[in-house]
Amino acid sequence: MRLQVPGYQLLSQASNLNYSFSGTGVNVSAALARLGHTGYLISRLPDNPIGDAAEAHLRKLGILPNFLTRGGKYLGMYFLENGFGARASRVTYSNRQESSFNTAPEQTYDYKVIAQQIDVVHFCGITLAMNDLVRQHMKALARAVKEAGGTVVFDCNYRPAHWGDGGYAKAKPHYVEMLQLADIVMMNEKDAMLILGMDTNKTERSEQLQDLIPQVAAAYDISVIAGTHRSINGDNTHSLRGYVYKDKAFCYSELLTFAVYDRIGAGDAYTCGIMHGEFQGFSPQQTVAFAAASGMLAHTIVGDTPMSSERDILRAMVDAVGDVER
Amino acid sequence: MRLQVPGYQLLSQASNLNYSFSGTGVNVSAALARLGHTGYLISRLPDNPIGDAAEAHLRKLGILPNFLTRGGKYLGMYFLENGFGARASRVTYSNRQESSFNTAPEQTYDYKVIAQQIDVVHFCGITLAMNDLVRQHMKALARAVKEAGGTVVFDCNYRPAHWGDGGYAKAKPHYVEMLQLADIVMMNEKDAMLILGMDTNKTERSEQLQDLIPQVAAAYDISVIAGTHRSINGDNTHSLRGYVYKDKAFCYSELLTFAVYDRIGAGDAYTCGIMHGEFQGFSPQQTVAFAAASGMLAHTIVGDTPMSSERDILRAMVDAVGDVER
Amino acid sequence: MRLQVPGYQLLSQASNLNYSFSGTGVNVSAALARLGHTGYLISRLPDNPIGDAAEAHLRKLGILPNFLTRGGKYLGMYFLENGFGARASRVTYSNRQESSFNTAPEQTYDYKVIAQQIDVVHFCGITLAMNDLVRQHMKALARAVKEAGGTVVFDCNYRPAHWGDGGYAKAKPHYVEMLQLADIVMMNEKDAMLILGMDTNKTERSEQLQDLIPQVAAAYDISVIAGTHRSINGDNTHSLRGYVYKDKAFCYSELLTFAVYDRIGAGDAYTCGIMHGEFQGFSPQQTVAFAAASGMLAHTIVGDTPMSSERDILRAMVDAVGDVER
Amino acid sequence: MRLQVPGYQLLSQASNLNYSFSGTGVNVSAALARLGHTGYLISRLPDNPIGDAAEAHLRKLGILPNFLTRGGKYLGMYFLENGFGARASRVTYSNRQESSFNTAPEQTYDYKVIAQQIDVVHFCGITLAMNDLVRQHMKALARAVKEAGGTVVFDCNYRPAHWGDGGYAKAKPHYVEMLQLADIVMMNEKDAMLILGMDTNKTERSEQLQDLIPQVAAAYDISVIAGTHRSINGDNTHSLRGYVYKDKAFCYSELLTFAVYDRIGAGDAYTCGIMHGEFQGFSPQQTVAFAAASGMLAHTIVGDTPMSSERDILRAMVDAVGDVER
Amino acid sequence: MRLQVPGYQLLSQASNLNYSFSGTGVNVSAALARLGHTGYLISRLPDNPIGDAAEAHLRKLGILPNFLTRGGKYLGMYFLENGFGARASRVTYSNRQESSFNTAPEQTYDYKVIAQQIDVVHFCGITLAMNDLVRQHMKALARAVKEAGGTVVFDCNYRPAHWGDGGYAKAKPHYVEMLQLADIVMMNEKDAMLILGMDTNKTERSEQLQDLIPQVAAAYDISVIAGTHRSINGDNTHSLRGYVYKDKAFCYSELLTFAVYDRIGAGDAYTCGIMHGEFQGFSPQQTVAFAAASGMLAHTIVGDTPMSSERDILRAMVDAVGDVER
Amino acid sequence: MRLQVPGYQLLSQASNLNYSFSGTGVNVSAALARLGHTGYLISRLPDNPIGDAAEAHLRKLGILPNFLTRGGKYLGMYFLENGFGARASRVTYSNRQESSFNTAPEQTYDYKVIAQQIDVVHFCGITLAMNDLVRQHMKALARAVKEAGGTVVFDCNYRPAHWGDGGYAKAKPHYVEMLQLADIVMMNEKDAMLILGMDTNKTERSEQLQDLIPQVAAAYDISVIAGTHRSINGDNTHSLRGYVYKDKAFCYSELLTFAVYDRIGAGDAYTCGIMHGEFQGFSPQQTVAFAAASGMLAHTIVGDTPMSSERDILRAMVDAVGDVER
Repeated sequence: MRLQVPGYQLLSQASNLNYSFSGTGVNVSAALARLGHTGYLISRLPDNPIGDAAEAHLRKLGILPNFLTRGGKYLGMYFLENGFGARASRVTYSNRQESSFNTAPEQTYDYKVIAQQIDVVHFCGITLAMNDLVRQHMKALARAVKEAGGTVVFDCNYRPAHWGDGGYAKAKPHYVEMLQLADIVMMNEKDAMLILGMDTNKTERSEQLQDLIPQVAAAYDISVIAGTHRSINGDNTHSLRGYVYKDKAFCYSELLTFAVYDRIGAGDAYTCGIMHGEFQGFSPQQTVAFAAASGMLAHTIVGDTPMSSERDILRAMVDAVGDVER
Repeated sequence: MRLQVPGYQLLSQASNLNYSFSGTGVNVSAALARLGHTGYLISRLPDNPIGDAAEAHLRKLGILPNFLTRGGKYLGMYFLENGFGARASRVTYSNRQESSFNTAPEQTYDYKVIAQQIDVVHFCGITLAMNDLVRQHMKALARAVKEAGGTVVFDCNYRPAHWGDGGYAKAKPHYVEMLQLADIVMMNEKDAMLILGMDTNKTERSEQLQDLIPQVAAAYDISVIAGTHRSINGDNTHSLRGYVYKDKAFCYSELLTFAVYDRIGAGDAYTCGIMHGEFQGFSPQQTVAFAAASGMLAHTIVGDTPMSSERDILRAMVDAVGDVER
Repeated sequence: MRLQVPGYQLLSQASNLNYSFSGTGVNVSAALARLGHTGYLISRLPDNPIGDAAEAHLRKLGILPNFLTRGGKYLGMYFLENGFGARASRVTYSNRQESSFNTAPEQTYDYKVIAQQIDVVHFCGITLAMNDLVRQHMKALARAVKEAGGTVVFDCNYRPAHWGDGGYAKAKPHYVEMLQLADIVMMNEKDAMLILGMDTNKTERSEQLQDLIPQVAAAYDISVIAGTHRSINGDNTHSLRGYVYKDKAFCYSELLTFAVYDRIGAGDAYTCGIMHGEFQGFSPQQTVAFAAASGMLAHTIVGDTPMSSERDILRAMVDAVGDVER
Repeated sequence: MRLQVPGYQLLSQASNLNYSFSGTGVNVSAALARLGHTGYLISRLPDNPIGDAAEAHLRKLGILPNFLTRGGKYLGMYFLENGFGARASRVTYSNRQESSFNTAPEQTYDYKVIAQQIDVVHFCGITLAMNDLVRQHMKALARAVKEAGGTVVFDCNYRPAHWGDGGYAKAKPHYVEMLQLADIVMMNEKDAMLILGMDTNKTERSEQLQDLIPQVAAAYDISVIAGTHRSINGDNTHSLRGYVYKDKAFCYSELLTFAVYDRIGAGDAYTCGIMHGEFQGFSPQQTVAFAAASGMLAHTIVGDTPMSSERDILRAMVDAVGDVER
Repeated sequence: MRLQVPGYQLLSQASNLNYSFSGTGVNVSAALARLGHTGYLISRLPDNPIGDAAEAHLRKLGILPNFLTRGGKYLGMYFLENGFGARASRVTYSNRQESSFNTAPEQTYDYKVIAQQIDVVHFCGITLAMNDLVRQHMKALARAVKEAGGTVVFDCNYRPAHWGDGGYAKAKPHYVEMLQLADIVMMNEKDAMLILGMDTNKTERSEQLQDLIPQVAAAYDISVIAGTHRSINGDNTHSLRGYVYKDKAFCYSELLTFAVYDRIGAGDAYTCGIMHGEFQGFSPQQTVAFAAASGMLAHTIVGDTPMSSERDILRAMVDAVGDVER
Repeated sequence: MRLQVPGYQLLSQASNLNYSFSGTGVNVSAALARLGHTGYLISRLPDNPIGDAAEAHLRKLGILPNFLTRGGKYLGMYFLENGFGARASRVTYSNRQESSFNTAPEQTYDYKVIAQQIDVVHFCGITLAMNDLVRQHMKALARAVKEAGGTVVFDCNYRPAHWGDGGYAKAKPHYVEMLQLADIVMMNEKDAMLILGMDTNKTERSEQLQDLIPQVAAAYDISVIAGTHRSINGDNTHSLRGYVYKDKAFCYSELLTFAVYDRIGAGDAYTCGIMHGEFQGFSPQQTVAFAAASGMLAHTIVGDTPMSSERDILRAMVDAVGDVER
C-alpha cells in the first residue's frame, strides 16, 4: 500500500494522502495485463476492509484475483513524499515483517495448482530480502513452475536497506539459488560484482557489463539477461539505455532522455517490455527498444504501475515528443 | 495516526485519505490546552518523517513537545470509514504491538523529572491493554506523580478487542492497581460489574450506577468518579447524560440530545470537562453540566480531538442550537 | 457513466465532477459479486480511453470482463446534481441512442456461448425502453438462457421519460414478452395497472398489490414476484417495506425507516437481496428481510452500486443503528 | 468576498478555503436574474486581480457589470466556519471600512444615469450601517430612482454588530429617511419596536406584528411590507412563516419546516420572492407563498446566493420533498 | 464542454474531472472581451442544467449571452487526459453530431439582427467540418455581416479527424466559399497545399509560406493573412514564430521558446492578438509581436480559454521570464 | 496570511484557496526551529478565529507562542497566483495598515523581558516600511537586545511598493538606524547604492559588491554582511550565488542552478543558513555554502516557509540531484 502526499508537500505540511496498491509483483502483473496477457498476483491479503480495498484496486489494474488468499493482520505500507528538483523524493516504510504476506504460513499457496495454470512466473529480489518463510515460498514455487514446464523470470533488484549490514554475503546464496532456477534475469554489472562477488579488470561501466554478464549467463544457464543503465541529469530529466544479452550477443537500445513525473515502478515497465518481447517473439533489437520505450513511458505515468498499451509504446518508439492527440 | 476516508466512501471505493494524529492522550492534552491549561504528551515517536509529521500536528493542536522522545520504527495507525445512518462507522487497526510507543524500552521516560513539571497526569485503559512494557511505564509514572503530590486521572475505557478472550480476568489486576493510584476516575456501572466483577441486585442501569459507584469510590479511595450514559437514537442523533460522584453525592447533567458529526474522541472531551471543572473549582453540578456540553460539542467537530474553548462550551450550555454567529 | 457534482452544488456553480460507471446491470452484477457470486456484464463499450476506464472501474467493482465487447463510439452518460432536503436531486441525461450499447449490431453477442456459462441472467425495463435493436438482444438472450436451463430475472423498472407519450401502450407488448420468459420478476401493483392495463376495485395500495400480483404470477407463470413500497418522509428519511410473492403466498419485511445518502441504485440492491435469498434457499421471510436490509444499506453507500457483503446485511438486520465498529 | 472553510472544519484545523462573492446586493440581483429579470449591481471594486475575480464571479451569477466601477484598494471579506448541530456557524469579518465600496468618493456613481436605466432599486440595512459616505450614496440614489418613477425596495436588516453600542438610536434617523423613500419594505415587529422605538401592549410576536406593521405602513406611506418569522428547531431544521401586508391586509404563508444546508442569504431569497410576486402581479397570497418557498429553497443551496428558477420554486410549492428527478 | 482529468492521471486511473466550456468561438470571444472588446457567442445550448451551466461559465469568461439560444438535447463534449513529457495529451470526443449546436434548425439565428449589432464575426474550420446545417448557418451569417459592412475573420483550423477519409477534397469547396467572404484569415502554407491543392516548388516550410500566401491573398482578396509555425522541443518546451501578411508584405515575430502548461486554445489567443492589433491600428510588426506573445501566454494558462489582459501581453513582450510580481 | 490559488489558475478562474501564515519573521523563526534552535515570533494577532488559526499554524511550524499577544482587528493578507514559465507569479495585497500588527500600541511588547529570554533577534526591511508605530517597536527592541548582550540581525529587504514615491529617501534614515544596531546584515550592492546612496565607479555587479560592502561594514561596524546574486534563466530555472563578508574577507558559494517550485521565502532560508553557520561556528566558506544550499532547497518546498533540516541541507551540498531515497 503506497500512501503518497499529493503534490509536493511534506508529511509534516499536508493533511491528506493518495493511496494505491503496488509493488513489483503488482506492477509486472498489471503491465502485462495491459499488454494483452492474463495477469495474476500470488499473495496474501488481510481479511478486512484494507484487504478488500487492495483486491478492488488490483482488479482495477487488470489483475485477476484467483491466487489471492486472505489471512494475517495487515498490509505492508510505505509513505511517499514527492521530491522536486534538488530535493529528492523520500520513502518511509512502515514495518513489513508482520504483514499478511510476510507471515503467510507454509500451506498458504498450492504451488502445483498455480504452476499448472500459468506459463510464466516473475520473482523480485525485494521479496527475496523479506524472511525465510517468504524465501521458501519463492523457491518452492519457482521449482514447481520449472517442473511444470513454465518460464521463471527473476529481477535481482537488490535493496541494501532490506538486507542490512553485510547484506551482500547474506543475500548471495539465495540469489545463486534463484539464478539457477531462472530463465530470464534482470540485472547489471553491479549485481554481478556486489552480490555474486565476481571480478573484472575493466573500470568503465559498459565494459564491466560486457565482461561479466556473459559469465553469469554461462554459469547459471540463463537464456536472457537484460537491464538498464540510468543517469540522472541536472535539469530534472533522466537518461536510460537498455541492454539485452541473448544467444551470446548484446543488443542496446538508444539512449533515451526524458522528463520524469513518477520514477517508481519504471524498472518494472522495462522488465515487462523484455518479457513481452520474448513472449511475442520480437528480435532482441526490437525487444530492447520496446522495453526502453516502455520504461520511459512509465516515468510519465502517475503511480507505481505502468499503464501503457502496446500501441502506446510502439508510438513512443517513433515520436519522442508529440502534440495533443485529437 | 488516523487515516480517514473523506466523505462517506469505503476504502475499496476511494483513493485518498485524510490523516491526523490522535488518541486519548492527544485528545485530552489538546482539549485541556484549548481550555487554557498547559498540555504535554508523554510518548515516543519514530525518528523519521512520520514522527516529524506527528510532532508538527501535535504542536498545531497546542501540545508542547517537551516530553516526546524519538526512537523505534513506526506509529500505530488506524483506518476510519465514516458510517452513515444505518451503516456504522468502521475502524480497521494496523498492527500496534511493534510501534515506537509500544516498544519503548525501560529507560525511555524519566518519571521523576516529568512528575516534577506537571500537576496532573491522565491515563487511559486502552494504553493499559497494550503490553507489559507499556503497563510498567504507566504504573511507574503514576506512582512518581503521586509521590510528587500530583493528581492522577484514570479513564477505564475498556476495549474488548484489545484484551481478547477472557479479557476481563486478564485486565482486572491492572485496573485494580490503577484505581488504587487514581484520584479522578472515569467509569460507569458496566466497568464495575465486568472488570471488577462487582455484583448488584439492581436491574436498571441508573440504579446499578448508584449502587456500585459509591462502593468503588470507597474501596479505592477515589475523590471523584464520573462518566456518561449514552443512547443512540433512530434518527442519527445521540443522547448523553453525564454524572459525577464526589463527596458521597451524585450530580447529573440534563439529558442532551444532538446530531453527530464525528463521534470519536467525544468521551475524552467529557473527561476534560470534568478535569477542567475540578481544576477551576466548579461545583459538581457546574462541572457535570460543563463536561456534558463539552462532550456534546466534540460530536460536532471534525477529527478525534476536541477543539472547543471554555467560552464555546459555556455558550452551548445556554443555547442548545443557535443561528449563525455574526 | 455517471458524472456527479460533488457535494450539493449545482452544475452551474461547480467546476468538477466525480465519475463512475453504473446502471442497473452494473449494480446487480457487482452487488451479487459482493455477495459471493460470480458476476459478468453483457455490454458493449467504445474502443477508446473511455471504454478502458469503464472496464477498469467495472473490474474494480468485482465484475468479470469476459462478456464485454468493444465497438461503437461512446458511452451513455448522465449528470447528477445532489439534492438536499426540499430540493430534489436532478438527473440530466446526455443522448443515449447513439451509444455503443444502443447501437450494438446483431452479431455482437453470442447468446448460446453466454447462456452456457451462466446460471442466471438479469434484465431491466430501462434497457427495454431503448430501441428495437436492444430489445432483440434482450429477448434472444433471455430465450437462450431459458433453453440452457437458466433462470431469467426481470425488473419492470418502467421509466416514463424513456417511453415518451403513450408509453404504456408502446411498452406493453415488450413487457408481456419479457414476463413470459421470466422466472423472477420485480414489480408492484402500479406496473400491473399501468403497463399491463389490469383492473382492480381496491383503492388502497397494499390491497391493490394483494389483488393483482397473484393474477400476474398466474398469467405469466412466474415463480417469484417481489418489490417494495417506498414513502419519503418530511425529515430527509425514507421508509421502505418489501414484499415477496411465492408459492401463492405473500411475505412482507418490516417497515424500515432510515436516513438517505444516495438513493440511486437502492432498488437494485433490493433485487439482489431477493436473488441471493432465492439462490441460497432462504425462506421467503428471510429473503424479504434480507432484501429490505440490502436496499436500506444501499441508501447509505456513495454511488449507484451497492457495496455491502452478506455479513454487513445480516448485521443491519439485527441492529438498526450502531455505534462505531472498532 | 466570502472565504469559507470547506466541510465542517474550523479555521484552525483546515488549510484551504472556498471563495465566492456575495452580499445582499449580489444575492438579490442574481436571484432576480435567475427569475428572468435583468440584474445589475451598483458597487465599486478594486482595480486588481481580486476585482477581476469578483466581476467574473458576479457575471457567472447572471449579474450585468454595467454599473460596476473600479477603484480603491480592496474588497470587504468575511470568513465562514460552518456549524453543525449544536455548534453554530461562525462569521469573522475582516475590516470593511477601508474597502473600495466603503471609500467610494462622491462622484463615483452617476445617480441619474443609473436611475433612468432601471425600474427598481434594492437597498439593505447592512449597507446603511457602513458610514456617512455610503449612506449619502444610498439616499441620493434612492431619491434619483424615486424621481425617475422607479420603485425603491428597502430591507431593514438591522445588524447590531455593525452599529455598535447605542446603535438603535444612531440608526433611527437613517432608517426613517429610507422608509420615507421606500415603496416595498422588508421588516418585522422587532424592527418597529427596536429601531423605530414604537410601542405595543401585545406580548405575543404575531400580535405585535399585526399591531405595528399597519402603523408603519401608514406613517411612511409604504405600499408593501413583508417579512418572516423564523424558529430554529432542535433537530437541525428551521421553520419559517412569511407575511405580506398590502392594501391594509395581512397574508401569511403556511409554516414551512425544512432541513438547512446554508442559511446565509436565505432572507434575500424571500425578499426576491416578494419582489417577483409584485412585479408579476401575483395576488398577495401567491406572492407570500412563492416568497416562502423561495426562501426555503435557498437554505438548500450552496453559497449565499439563491439559485432557484421560477419553475423550481413553483414545484417546491407543490411537493414538500421529492424523489430523484429523472 | 471539456471534461479534463486533473493532474496527470488517465481516465482509467482517476475518478473525478474538471469541467469547463470552451471551443474556438468561446476562446476568441472571451479573449477579446479580456482585451476590452464586447464579446458574444452565437450558439445553441440545451434547455437543461447543462445549458444553464454553460451559460454561467460563458458569462464568467466575460461573454454576453445575448445571442445564445436554447433548444436541442445536449452539448458536445470531449475528454482530456493531460500528457507529460514523452506521453502526449489525449483527447477523446463524445459524439457531437446530435448536439444542440449541430442540430440547430434553419430559423434558429436571426442573421440580420445579429449582423447589425456586431462589427466583426469570427468563424473556425472546425465548425465548418460539422454538417451541412451548420455550414449553412455559417455562410449565411458571414454574408449578412459582410452586407452590413462588418469584418469576417476565418481560421482555417483543418482537423483531419472531423473530415474523415478524402477529407481535403470534401472540405475544399466550403473553404473556398469562406475564404471568398473573409477579410482576415488564419492559415499557413499547409492549408494552401492540402486544402486548396496549391503547388509550390519550394521545399522549405518558410519558403513555401512566402510563395503561397500572397497567391491566396490575391485569389480571394483577403486583407490580412496570419498564422504561426510551431515546433516542439525535446525538453517540454515549444517554439513559436508568428507571421502576418498584409499590404503585400510579410512581418514575422521573434522565435519564442517557452514552457507549456496547457496547449489547447493557444492558437485562438494568437488569432485574437492579430484581431486586436488590427482593430487598434497597430503596425503589422506590433501586431505580430503582440499576437505571438498572446499565444505564448495562453500556453501558461489553465484551460482552453486565454485570460491575458493587454497589459499582461505587453509586459510579456518585454520580459521573457519574470520574478514574482509584488 | 497567504491565500494562494492552488495549481496555476488565476483568481478569476478558481474558487478555492490554500491558506498559510507566513512572512519573513515566521519563515526565519520556523526555519531556525527546524535547524534545532528555539524560535519565537514577536507579533500581535487578532483575538478571533483567524488569530487562533494563525497561532495553530505557527505552532505547527515549530514556533513557540510565548511572545504572541492578542488584540486589534485583523491580520494582513496577500493573495498569490502562481505563475508558470513566461507568466510571472502575482501577489495582491489586501490592506495592511490597519492590521493587528501594524496598529499594536506602545505598551504591547515588553522589550526588556523579551530581550532577556533570547540570544538573537531578526528584523526585516519590509516591517521597517510599515509605519512609525512599528518602526518604534523595532528600534526599541533592537536596542533592548543589544543592551542585553544579544545579537541583532537585519535583512535590508527593500520593497519599493511599500515605501512609495521617493521611497529611498524616506527609508534611508531608518535603514541607517537599523544598520547601526545590527551585527549581521543581509544586503547587496544595490541596497548600498539605492538606499544608502553610496557611489562606486565599478559597473559590474560583482565588482560593485566588492567595492561597497566593505565600506558599509566599516561605516556601521557590522561583523557579518551576506547576501545573494540571483539570475532567472529562460528554462524555468534560477541561478544563485551567495556571498559572506566577514573579517574583511569575501567568501562565495558555488553558482547553484536549480528548478523552482515556490520562490517566496527562499531569501529567508538563505538568511537562516548564514545565521545557523554563525551560531554553530562554521567557517565562512562552510557558512556560505550551507546558506546557498538552504536557499536552493527552499525553492523546492511548498509554501513560504523553509522546511529543511540540517541533514537535508548537508546532503543537498553533496548531491545536486538525487534518485528516490528509500
